[in-house]
Amino acid sequence: MGGYENGDSPAAFAGEDGVILGVDGGTTNTVCVCLPAAMPPPESPAAVPVLARAVNGCSNRNSVGEFFAQRHTEVFDFYLSESTALETLELVMTQALAMANTDRSAVRAVCLAVSGVNHPSDQQRMLEWIRDLFPGNAKFYVENDAVAALASGTMGKLHGCVLIAGTGSIAYGVTEDGKVARAAGAGPVLGDWGSGYGIAAQALTAVIKAHDGRGPQTSLTGDILEKLELSSPDEIIGWTYADPSWARIAALVPVVVSSAEDGDEVANKILHDSVQELADTVIAVVRRLRLCGEDGNDKFPLVLVGGVLEGNKKWDISGKVIKCISKVFPGADPIWPEVEPAIGAALLAWSHHRKGLKLENGS
Amino acid sequence: MGGYENGDSPAAFAGEDGVILGVDGGTTNTVCVCLPAAMPPPESPAAVPVLARAVNGCSNRNSVGEFFAQRHTEVFDFYLSESTALETLELVMTQALAMANTDRSAVRAVCLAVSGVNHPSDQQRMLEWIRDLFPGNAKFYVENDAVAALASGTMGKLHGCVLIAGTGSIAYGVTEDGKVARAAGAGPVLGDWGSGYGIAAQALTAVIKAHDGRGPQTSLTGDILEKLELSSPDEIIGWTYADPSWARIAALVPVVVSSAEDGDEVANKILHDSVQELADTVIAVVRRLRLCGEDGNDKFPLVLVGGVLEGNKKWDISGKVIKCISKVFPGADPIWPEVEPAIGAALLAWSHHRKGLKLENGS
Repeated sequence: MGGYENGDSPAAFAGEDGVILGVDGGTTNTVCVCLPAAMPPPESPAAVPVLARAVNGCSNRNSVGEFFAQRHTEVFDFYLSESTALETLELVMTQALAMANTDRSAVRAVCLAVSGVNHPSDQQRMLEWIRDLFPGNAKFYVENDAVAALASGTMGKLHGCVLIAGTGSIAYGVTEDGKVARAAGAGPVLGDWGSGYGIAAQALTAVIKAHDGRGPQTSLTGDILEKLELSSPDEIIGWTYADPSWARIAALVPVVVSSAEDGDEVANKILHDSVQELADTVIAVVRRLRLCGEDGNDKFPLVLVGGVLEGNKKWDISGKVIKCISKVFPGADPIWPEVEPAIGAALLAWSHHRKGLKLENGS
Repeated sequence: MGGYENGDSPAAFAGEDGVILGVDGGTTNTVCVCLPAAMPPPESPAAVPVLARAVNGCSNRNSVGEFFAQRHTEVFDFYLSESTALETLELVMTQALAMANTDRSAVRAVCLAVSGVNHPSDQQRMLEWIRDLFPGNAKFYVENDAVAALASGTMGKLHGCVLIAGTGSIAYGVTEDGKVARAAGAGPVLGDWGSGYGIAAQALTAVIKAHDGRGPQTSLTGDILEKLELSSPDEIIGWTYADPSWARIAALVPVVVSSAEDGDEVANKILHDSVQELADTVIAVVRRLRLCGEDGNDKFPLVLVGGVLEGNKKWDISGKVIKCISKVFPGADPIWPEVEPAIGAALLAWSHHRKGLKLENGS
């Protein structure tokens, strides 16, 4: 554990100076991590002293909620069953505190990073709820889950742009003086074509079009049928609608990448179009926030998160996205986070807490 | 009632020579019409002597079933609750027979035209079911619902291509010797971009992209927000996913048409792209079936059905679709049906029945 003096265990920090909670409620899971409030700035991502980590499922399991749960879990928890979602958040925090051998009275700061927090009214409602939950003078921060992903790359500093491309896709940016902007993140109906879901849906469409005579032949047909263990493209319609999970569709991305690597033109076009979509998403945010400075050349962190942007394949999606962005904004500084978003959320709360202490101490 | 001798009422035909049933189970409703088996060929669509017409809802109302019910009702009835779907079909036929003051013993032929009938195995299963339902020597025909739409334009003759563009879109063709082919009809995940749903989803996406800086400004923003009584494009995300009905999205098509008529470039591009998608769908089917003959210039019926292709607006979608198709296949002969698909199904059964009688009589 770098950054600690001999004999200090993470638990020792908790006992003396309380703890920090970071919650990531962005996808089908809710994750809460607990950090010691008095920890020094971690020298590296590996040096973050995690006291406890609790995971809980998505609370709302009714069919519509689950259908839309892939990217907008919390949106639908709010629409359909806000109380159940809040119960899950409470539970995961209680679990993490128990695992860290401490309780609510030790909590100094909490960052809840949940998708669906888009308006000040969402934020206000959650702040009121969490203030009632914790006694004393703890500080609370409620953010969109993309903020936790950004902080997981910047080690808690809120500055830069994060691009998330997993099942869904979103770009979210924050300036040093607190202005925020987002692009995409609106789900598959509203055109997140660079997302894993978008890439896979385009590939399935290409197979249907090749089959019914509207499009060119493609090796995606054989590759996808083999992967899905189907015998004819006709069966893809049944497969697609039999289970409406977005993540199940998005899981076909590696097949598309593999077909593209093998030289299939249709698969290559889908990936190139998606690269452009993802780059456009970041460019829109960076431009609106002027993250690149007045001359357009300032350096800014560009945090890359999600299955579509991971891995080091021959067909390097994230490399091509960065290349597209760098043509417009050469200061884009790509970062692949080494810690999970929940730790990003916790580091954010810790960083605010630390500033607060400094102010109190007059330093 | 043209085509009848003085004193003959439609009911008189039923009493003597039995009846024909036509069922359209293609959308959220199931419609059954009852015709007299002994009727002469109708001189015009208005002259079809309908004895009774019964309407029943879609049987399967569980959330997933209903979600996908807009275009693929029967697909999901089959997946989720085949027995309930069959109960609805039985009920609507029983209702129509009761309204016509007759019973099952009077039935000479039935055509069930239901979406989801795509494979010979679907057809076989439904044939076995309906044979058990009706005693005697009645004839049964099980078809995809698009066949009923085609027959509603050709007055029961199975030849030509039908293009349906309502909430969903599909092209379905039949040759005079019984070969069939289809294109599209695979739902929004699989790229039916010319459908009402497709047009509206592209318009909503354009509003989101204009708002977050990825796309050009468009008057669709003001027009759609006004229509949906929302105050900001941010609220469109919530609106879209709050109720996942495809038909609710597709209901925005008139707004897109109106924006295009007012000169909005984004709306115009969406409609032009959709026209090309719809034309490509028909062209793929006509080419595969060689409906245009060996030289490509033969005349063939092109039946146009569905909200997207109706009306006589300034921005004439169906006119532009026909223009695109005619450039490739000048023999396309457009027909806008004057009777509903259920009557098309009944005319199909009647036409088969009539041929059977002629064969029996040695004529």
